[in-house]
Amino acid sequence: MPLWKVYHPVGAYTDEDKHELSKRITDVYFMLPRFYVGVIFYEVPEASFYIGGQPTRNFVRIHADHVARQMDSEAKKTMFLTRVEGAIAPFIKDRGFDWEFHVDETPFDLWTIQGIRPPRAETEDEKRWIVENRASPRTHA
Amino acid sequence: MPLWKVYHPVGAYTDEDKHELSKRITDVYFMLPRFYVGVIFYEVPEASFYIGGQPTRNFVRIHADHVARQMDSEAKKTMFLTRVEGAIAPFIKDRGFDWEFHVDETPFDLWTIQGIRPPRAETEDEKRWIVENRASPRTHA
Amino acid sequence: MPLWKVYHPVGAYTDEDKHELSKRITDVYFMLPRFYVGVIFYEVPEASFYIGGQPTRNFVRIHADHVARQMDSEAKKTMFLTRVEGAIAPFIKDRGFDWEFHVDETPFDLWTIQGIRPPRAETEDEKRWIVENRASPRTHA
Repeated sequence: MPLWKVYHPVGAYTDEDKHELSKRITDVYFMLPRFYVGVIFYEVPEASFYIGGQPTRNFVRIHADHVARQMDSEAKKTMFLTRVEGAIAPFIKDRGFDWEFHVDETPFDLWTIQGIRPPRAETEDEKRWIVENRASPRTHA
Repeated sequence: MPLWKVYHPVGAYTDEDKHELSKRITDVYFMLPRFYVGVIFYEVPEASFYIGGQPTRNFVRIHADHVARQMDSEAKKTMFLTRVEGAIAPFIKDRGFDWEFHVDETPFDLWTIQGIRPPRAETEDEKRWIVENRASPRTHA
Repeated sequence: MPLWKVYHPVGAYTDEDKHELSKRITDVYFMLPRFYVGVIFYEVPEASFYIGGQPTRNFVRIHADHVARQMDSEAKKTMFLTRVEGAIAPFIKDRGFDWEFHVDETPFDLWTIQGIRPPRAETEDEKRWIVENRASPRTHA
């Protein structure tokens, strides 16, 4: 978590594009361990991708699941959404694609990495995970 | 939003079928701007699609995310589910497929289209988006 | 429901592996009708799968939606997550893959199977569905 799924037209992105965009998405979550951020790209053929009941070959649809943090203030949500737009613009808006983005927030207590339940926000364990950039056994409850 | 993902057997639908079904799904949401409705079709090979631990080649599994509206009464939920069944029946039940459908409701405040946070239900801005069938800058807060 | 989506590297699993893993996942939900459990496998090419902004070819990412039951105590969540790890280990940990797992809980009232709203937990209708392993008209409200 976060897990982003990016549904895009066939051929919209090169491998280098996807790598670079995934790095920009990861940077949005600067407060989290980098390995928390997963991004999966899907090519969707025009005949399998509909907006408003019409086939589309110019649309990028992004769905993100958030687990590690929930945004509890309007200010945080606005800041987050603004950062997202800045991160994705070079690969979406600036290339003339249409796009839509939505986030779901899912339960922290039903999440594991390498079989370990991740530490709470800003705990000593989370700080260590950020530095080491990998999951390791918890040292606090 | 809504975003429908339709997981179906390989070869179940022609391009014309998918176009027609996406229009019928869009019609279910007659109170929303049509361009809010996204539908993505996935062919799932039998060896990658299991129901009850058994491979299936006859199952259509639909997952919808709702963002723009939350249904807050039993009457609305019943009416919605009935409309859904009517919309999809010609392509699922009437063709002898088995099927399952579920909806998740995700946070309105974590949703953007073309980088714009969509207007609240039944506001002047939403009415304009319905008429114009595209996102445009908000004129009210 | 539950619906599992298993995103895995290209070639990670044979058809027999996927069948066996889907049976083990179904067994986790021993209290539910078996046909409630759906599992979809996706091969994700390395150039479309990023963890921490880096392409990965060794990662299995699992996302499950739960509808029929919500876990309301820490003890139930711990027991569930432990069962999940045991079920998947032979195909993930024991083969040297890295992995992450998260669950979303979605609204019971927005869920249908064969157009029927499933019975509540532990009702007579649910018991019949478990025995018959298929959906059938409800006999109680």
